[in-house]
Amino acid sequence: MITKNTIKQIASLRQQKFRKELGLFVVEGRKMTEELLHSSFETLGLYATEAFLADYPTFDKAEIVSEVQMQQMSGLDTPPGILAVVKIPQQGEIKTDSRLVLALDGIANPGNMGTLIRTAEWFGIHDVVCSSDCVELWNPKTVQATMGSLFRMKVWSTDLPAFLKQAKAEGSAIYGALLDGENLFQMQAKPECILVIGSESHGIRKDVLPCITHPVTIPRVNGSATESLNAAVAGGIIIAEMIRP
Amino acid sequence: MITKNTIKQIASLRQQKFRKELGLFVVEGRKMTEELLHSSFETLGLYATEAFLADYPTFDKAEIVSEVQMQQMSGLDTPPGILAVVKIPQQGEIKTDSRLVLALDGIANPGNMGTLIRTAEWFGIHDVVCSSDCVELWNPKTVQATMGSLFRMKVWSTDLPAFLKQAKAEGSAIYGALLDGENLFQMQAKPECILVIGSESHGIRKDVLPCITHPVTIPRVNGSATESLNAAVAGGIIIAEMIRP
Repeated sequence: MITKNTIKQIASLRQQKFRKELGLFVVEGRKMTEELLHSSFETLGLYATEAFLADYPTFDKAEIVSEVQMQQMSGLDTPPGILAVVKIPQQGEIKTDSRLVLALDGIANPGNMGTLIRTAEWFGIHDVVCSSDCVELWNPKTVQATMGSLFRMKVWSTDLPAFLKQAKAEGSAIYGALLDGENLFQMQAKPECILVIGSESHGIRKDVLPCITHPVTIPRVNGSATESLNAAVAGGIIIAEMIRP
Repeated sequence: MITKNTIKQIASLRQQKFRKELGLFVVEGRKMTEELLHSSFETLGLYATEAFLADYPTFDKAEIVSEVQMQQMSGLDTPPGILAVVKIPQQGEIKTDSRLVLALDGIANPGNMGTLIRTAEWFGIHDVVCSSDCVELWNPKTVQATMGSLFRMKVWSTDLPAFLKQAKAEGSAIYGALLDGENLFQMQAKPECILVIGSESHGIRKDVLPCITHPVTIPRVNGSATESLNAAVAGGIIIAEMIRP
């Protein structure tokens, strides 16, 4: 039977501090847990309510907890009834092999972060390199917004300016979403490249800018009063256009 | 001086029930308030903290409130220091004139709803027709996610199947984002059309499906394990490709 201490520990994983300290993160929901169990991630605990198991008996390896216990563990207002505790994998050396590598510079919103990773996977991108100040990948909202993609992607957190500086020195084409670049719909993207998406409030930052070899812009329709697009939408439009499957 | 009752009333506008009852909604933040004051929306109250006014003295028409009062009124964890109470405009008859009209079928997430409206405006679309069960436009999270676009757009809430049925009968081309439609990147979009984006969990629903004259799909790269794209990202990619400014 699950102990009060375990429940308390799982609840503490809502905070980055404890995720870091314990090296663990939480996954909730049927679909996400299914994707998790099919992945190479190490699941250390799997908990479900009886009501959930009555609907989805295939999760019979889960330990049964009461509705109240699930409520205490869950980070969601309406707990879906299944929750897994997962080991945060150790980050290896950066080794990219996607034709387009996505680089994220200071993405702060977990929804945008997760959505960008989900979109990347749709278009066959497996490699995402994040600046070390991007919102944490193991944040429950990031995890949720990836809709399972994070279990299949390689996502690195690193000194992004240093990574891009080296890539540029090695001759990589580095595209960056900027407001004064080449028209996305009129350019010919190189088959192998890195695409940098900047943060919601500051765009691509000063220390990354000199690394951009190909500034690219999603043209705004004449007369439109909007100042910018949402970072995840902008990323999606540029990736789609550069890949066009 | 602001009364306790007014503060209580403003705080109540976090709930849809009271927004409906009072016909009011709340706008927070410098940028959003600026866009509001430049719009045709009727601002019934404008409140700011002294600290905010010290930084942005041009908002001198605002009534000064204390930090504590602002905290009580605001729906945000960290109130930006300026808050407006705005009259919900009466919805007129649907009269679209955009070359592409965006139709939203059951969008439930306010972030997606607001982002779709913001994206539409970027691409010169002024008309958005929503099914009556879409998340409310005046929800503070929707308002925020539009980044001010909602003050310049025409957004109608209506019986979407009936609207589309009539449009189809009148000969409109009605595109719908579906998983088994024509390849977005290989089709030629009609210059005047309606584009339907379905809900996050159910896509375009049964009662709307028969109205779709042109199913359209964002092709997924072979082998990708993702099942879908985020609704706002999918909408952005399709709009961008259909408009290509």
